[in-house]
This record gives sequence, structure tokens and C-alpha cells, in this order.
Amino acid sequence: MKKKKITASVLVIGNEILSGKTQDININFIANRCSKIGHFLQEVRIVRDNKKQIINTIRELSKKYNNVFTTGGIGPTHDDITAECIAKAFDKKLELNKIAHKLLINHYKKSNIELNESRLKMAFIPINAQLIKNSVSAAPGFKIKNVWVMAGVPKIMQAMFLEDIEPKLVKGEKLLSASVKVLKPEGDIAEFLKGLQNNFKEIEIGSYPFYKPPEIGTTLIFRGTNNKKINNAIKVLCNYLTKAKIQYLL
Amino acid sequence: MKKKKITASVLVIGNEILSGKTQDININFIANRCSKIGHFLQEVRIVRDNKKQIINTIRELSKKYNNVFTTGGIGPTHDDITAECIAKAFDKKLELNKIAHKLLINHYKKSNIELNESRLKMAFIPINAQLIKNSVSAAPGFKIKNVWVMAGVPKIMQAMFLEDIEPKLVKGEKLLSASVKVLKPEGDIAEFLKGLQNNFKEIEIGSYPFYKPPEIGTTLIFRGTNNKKINNAIKVLCNYLTKAKIQYLL
Repeated sequence: MKKKKITASVLVIGNEILSGKTQDININFIANRCSKIGHFLQEVRIVRDNKKQIINTIRELSKKYNNVFTTGGIGPTHDDITAECIAKAFDKKLELNKIAHKLLINHYKKSNIELNESRLKMAFIPINAQLIKNSVSAAPGFKIKNVWVMAGVPKIMQAMFLEDIEPKLVKGEKLLSASVKVLKPEGDIAEFLKGLQNNFKEIEIGSYPFYKPPEIGTTLIFRGTNNKKINNAIKVLCNYLTKAKIQYLL
Repeated sequence: MKKKKITASVLVIGNEILSGKTQDININFIANRCSKIGHFLQEVRIVRDNKKQIINTIRELSKKYNNVFTTGGIGPTHDDITAECIAKAFDKKLELNKIAHKLLINHYKKSNIELNESRLKMAFIPINAQLIKNSVSAAPGFKIKNVWVMAGVPKIMQAMFLEDIEPKLVKGEKLLSASVKVLKPEGDIAEFLKGLQNNFKEIEIGSYPFYKPPEIGTTLIFRGTNNKKINNAIKVLCNYLTKAKIQYLL
């Protein structure tokens, strides 16, 4: 039976990304995991720590895609407003989640740190949300409807995704990819590629120039869910390159 | 006279970012330049090489923000569809731009490379668009309405932005920022920060935890257009930290 296509989107929340202070690496991590488990990442948004913007974006993405992964804004400080915005987006209230509360009590007891009011804020979770485990610093993420809410710190985000989210996601048809390195600029093979893409509509052929003299050329990426079709397309390409006396590496 | 707030957004176009193949570094570059020249970057989107998605997103962002900066999709291959999508978004036609054509003729003549039909595609520009200079590989970007269309290759994108776009942009009120490194976890100072932010509404106080033992703590970023207010807020913070015997670095 053919599995149906599962779509995904990412919402990065945080002024530090939009001010240029921080180079995001969460998007690339989630993008790679999505490829791995056959989820088609369709869109990414980065927004400010702004209530209206977060609420509207969450509502829009949640309607459009099967899953929404958010990062950032669930810490203890005044600029951490993700939980209240997600609650609002789904007309839910925040409540002191008993399990989250216990997790924080235990974590801070062990670390000999006071669980003050600011830290307690991290246990306020939208009603009926499922918690997402945080093996790094205890304060959990949560899932509500199709929105998975994670921390922004990459180490914590990655632990949440790998240890708790990914095992729970329905796997899609595996996205396969293969690449061919062609030692010619892409303009030389563009006409041929256009025809090749037309003949293999079920796969996606991406063309990415590289320029690292003495190596100048094009990386071609073949992506799709049908291995045979990918291999056939590559065979046609290699025949062409051989005839045209163009060097390539598989 | 007070300058008015200038807003900006970025649209990254390319399957390679959403598949995880490529780690984007263009967003961070543009974000930093925007901070430098006083443009408020409000939103970033990353979309696929998909006509409908690109057209709709361009229309939306162009209406919402003063400037839209796009990267990617203006090369010679079949997956480079940005120019036709931007034309479509503004109900314009693509035409062979005479200046762009000459630039390509000269460039490829010098490099002893054939200007074939695929490469010629890069000289098809929406009618009435202004060209953006490309000092790296000749093929120009272009500006139409408030949308600045750039290449995706970082080296080319950066040259376009620095050499041709930035000098043409109206400068906004300079965004100033100052940071204080506090050697305590953010949960310890969150309550105080909340009050501080409330007392200094015109500036933005961001709180970013770091964890690099033996250094554990919080970087606080104060951002705004009024230097005096930033300094005052930092003074209040430092008084508090000194009294509370919390170490910090200016």
C-alpha cells in the first residue's frame, strides 16, 4: 500500500535570530530528520517574540501542514512567551501541569537550585497538551493538536526531537536521495537537465553549482520515494555525460 | 526629526534548505546588515521551488513590509524559477534585458564559455525591474517594487547586498545594542528582568542562557534606538547585580 505524503513546517521563535545575533542551526537539524523519516518539510518561518505574530502564524501553519515544529521561547524569562501564545492560538488556558511541576522540583532539588516563580513558569502548559521529555534540563516541551513545541537551545531541542518526538511520529514513505558530481558548470548541462526532469516528473532533480578551484562544477541531487526511478534517471544522465565526454563522480 | 521605523523580511527559496542538504547562512548575513542600517527584520520564510508558494509568499511579504530580500533560484537550470514567479506575482512579463544580456556576453566571452540558451535565461528579467550588480559571476539580480532578488550562493548574495543594495537603501534609525554577561542561570534573575523590561518599554531586553562549564550564565542583550535609555537600563541592572552579589561582565 502506498503511504500518503506527510507534510511538515518549522516555526522558529526568537528576536536573536532576526537581529543576527544568533546563527540558527535548528532548522537544518529538523530538515534532516524530516527527510530521514519521510516527512516533507514544506515551509519554515522565523518570527519575533511578538504575541500577535506567533499566534497568527501558529494557526496558519497548523491548518496547512500535518505537523508543525516550533523552537524557542519556553524558558523562564519575560521574553519567553511561546507557551501562552500557543495556548491562545488554540483557545486553551495555561495550567500548572502536575507532571511538569514534579519534574522541575526533582531537577532543581538535585542541582541545589531554587525553584522560584520564574522557573515555575516553565511548568505552565496548555490544558490537555502532552509533555515532551527534556533529558538535558528537565523543563519539558509539549504537543498540542499537531504542534510540537520545543526549546531553542540546540542541545535541548535535539534531545527532545530524537528521544521523544521522532519515535512518536508516523513515518512517511522514505525520501531517498542520490547525488552525482559533474565537473562542468551547471550552464553547460542545464538544457539536458530540463529534459531529464521532464521525463522523470516523479523525482526532483536539484542542481547546485560549486566553485572550489581547481574543482568547478555542479552537484545534482535526485530525490524521490521510488529508488528504481532515481536509478533510471541517473543512468540516463551518465549515458549522456559519457557521450558528451563530461567527467562525473557517482 | 525622528526617523520612521523601516521593516524588512527575507524569503529564502530553495529545496536544498528544506531537505537539510544545505545549512543556510544567508539569513544571518542579511539579519546582521539590517541591524547595522536600522531596518527591523520582522519575518523570514523559507519555501520550496514551487511556483504557487513563491508567488503567494512574495505578494504577502511585499504588502506587509517595507523591503523584501529574496535569495536563491536565479541560475540557469530548470529548478531556477524565481524570476518568472516574481514577474507573475506583480503581473509583469519577463523580457530579455539588454543590459543584462550585454553583461552575460562580456562575462562569458572573457571566460571562454558559451553563452547558451540556458545561460541566456539569466538575462530574462521582469519588465521595468532595476538590475542588481553581481561582481562575482555577472548574472544580475533585480529589484521590482520593494522586492530585492538575489542569488542563493552566499558569496554572490553578499556581494550584491554590500555593493549594490545597501548603498541604495534608506537608512533607518540606528539600532544600538549592548550586552551584559551575567554569571548566573537566567532563572535566578528572571523576576528582576521582568520588572526591568516593564520599566524600560522602549528598549528590548533579550535573555539568552549559556552553558559552557565552568562558565554558566546568561547573556543579556539590550537593543533599541536610544543610547541613553540602554545605558540607564544597564546601570539599574548592574546596581541590582552588585547588591545581590552576582558576578557580571560588561
